[in-house]
Amino acid sequence: MNFIEWIAVDWGTSRMRLWALNAQGEIVESAASDFGMAKVSQGQFERTLLQLIDPWLAGNTDLIPVIACGMVGARQGWQEVPYESVPCTPSIRFSKVETLSQLVDVRICWGLKQQVPADVMRGEETQIAGLLHHRTDYDGVVCLPGTHCKWARLKQGLVAEFQSYMTGELYELLAKSSVLRFSIVDDDWQIDVFEEAVRTALDDPASITGRLFGLRAGALVGKACGHGNAARLSGYLIGLELASARRFWESNEVSIIGASGLAKHYQHAMNLVGSSAQLLDTEAMTLAGLKAAYNAYKVESDV
Amino acid sequence: MNFIEWIAVDWGTSRMRLWALNAQGEIVESAASDFGMAKVSQGQFERTLLQLIDPWLAGNTDLIPVIACGMVGARQGWQEVPYESVPCTPSIRFSKVETLSQLVDVRICWGLKQQVPADVMRGEETQIAGLLHHRTDYDGVVCLPGTHCKWARLKQGLVAEFQSYMTGELYELLAKSSVLRFSIVDDDWQIDVFEEAVRTALDDPASITGRLFGLRAGALVGKACGHGNAARLSGYLIGLELASARRFWESNEVSIIGASGLAKHYQHAMNLVGSSAQLLDTEAMTLAGLKAAYNAYKVESDV
Repeated sequence: MNFIEWIAVDWGTSRMRLWALNAQGEIVESAASDFGMAKVSQGQFERTLLQLIDPWLAGNTDLIPVIACGMVGARQGWQEVPYESVPCTPSIRFSKVETLSQLVDVRICWGLKQQVPADVMRGEETQIAGLLHHRTDYDGVVCLPGTHCKWARLKQGLVAEFQSYMTGELYELLAKSSVLRFSIVDDDWQIDVFEEAVRTALDDPASITGRLFGLRAGALVGKACGHGNAARLSGYLIGLELASARRFWESNEVSIIGASGLAKHYQHAMNLVGSSAQLLDTEAMTLAGLKAAYNAYKVESDV
Repeated sequence: MNFIEWIAVDWGTSRMRLWALNAQGEIVESAASDFGMAKVSQGQFERTLLQLIDPWLAGNTDLIPVIACGMVGARQGWQEVPYESVPCTPSIRFSKVETLSQLVDVRICWGLKQQVPADVMRGEETQIAGLLHHRTDYDGVVCLPGTHCKWARLKQGLVAEFQSYMTGELYELLAKSSVLRFSIVDDDWQIDVFEEAVRTALDDPASITGRLFGLRAGALVGKACGHGNAARLSGYLIGLELASARRFWESNEVSIIGASGLAKHYQHAMNLVGSSAQLLDTEAMTLAGLKAAYNAYKVESDV
């Protein structure tokens, strides 16, 4: 049986991932759960965690460090932990969580905040720390697509500044809850339509707000039947984001952290504007970031 | 007892308004109902109408014309009626609706459509016809704020072109269904915040998509508590619309049809950009437009 030295947890709003690691930093166990922060009631976080890692603790008598990142540290999470202000090294600080169990020593990584313009992140800072773990001298930009896509500028090992875009959430609201829901055919990705929409948004961002209703009207005046509209809407919104985030990606190396279809759409759009953005795996970056946090924990605890 | 010559109906998605008029065009009865098109099941439209106007028909033996406009003529409405293509005179054409009742002769006004860029309206064309009824030589622009705000250019009695903006729906989705819902305090209208947001959006429309998350983050980093955010979000979105609709309002006379708070916000924003947009009452314009349609009906029916 493999000896477990510590446990890494990526505890987001809608999902959680857990890994048990040995002294060599190798994964000896892993698990996934739908018990994201939003699904766990107040007072049930410890129990949720222990149920998932209980099989791994069998026979273990040592106190096992558990390093967690993500929305579990938000006000609505297990315990609210602070945001560290940029510029700073990401994911080095964390707070201890009091537990009833004597088997685990739980720490939650701090998020990052920025005063002007006001912005926050929780979880993405750990992925950024993972990138810096692999490339300590990275001087460039990181894009983290998702519900609230984050762009961060890294310099000399620090997060210098960052900005969030509600692009993912806007897409969901428009495609599923607005009048456009009648005109979006989801399983129909047309790459040429996406490209044209990205270019349109970049060339004339102000026009997009006037083009959205056209996705619906196009079907009503008999010009289209909704095919391609998922790609068109996504292209408009990602293009609008790129127009606004130009200062991040222009003349900078860009890394996109994400393996989803969404991350690939971002990469495709970046290629269109002449940026050879590379795609990095979310899970690998998160785990590397949690390892960096665990190293800081060891120094602090003098293990 | 006043003799009823015809009945005018404004039958929208969420509400309906009805007026009974005499031979002099004076209102002798009126009613309002929450039975908007979206609340009436298929096959129940005639019954819904008759229940509301039944008291007015008592003792009447003539066939009473009923002229209706709005979403009642959509695919999901009583009977789908066509869209007329711009450029055209608004609200002169209508379709007969077959009824079981022998008491009424129901006509539904056509909407307007535009092929390039694809766009449609149902109901607003009647308000525009009302404006043209009062000012036959109107050469300028009409703005009709609402869930889907419409801008139309009028020339020589015709609607030359128009464009819809989803600003109202976007506001509702963001303020009530997005992560921003935690940060919007609705009963708190700060006019200076609104003005600053409109100017920001007009000066730099591409930046707005990056400013939205800041409404939430501002509260989290302790800079704000959500006060003023309703005005800020509204200002951003209306400013974005004005940036896109510039070709409509710049160097043109502008009339805003609407009496709601929303219409007043549009007027305020227009004043900021140097346009002395006048405010016209929706109900008065709708009724004038329905009268124009009734006059066309009389000519057609040779009454």
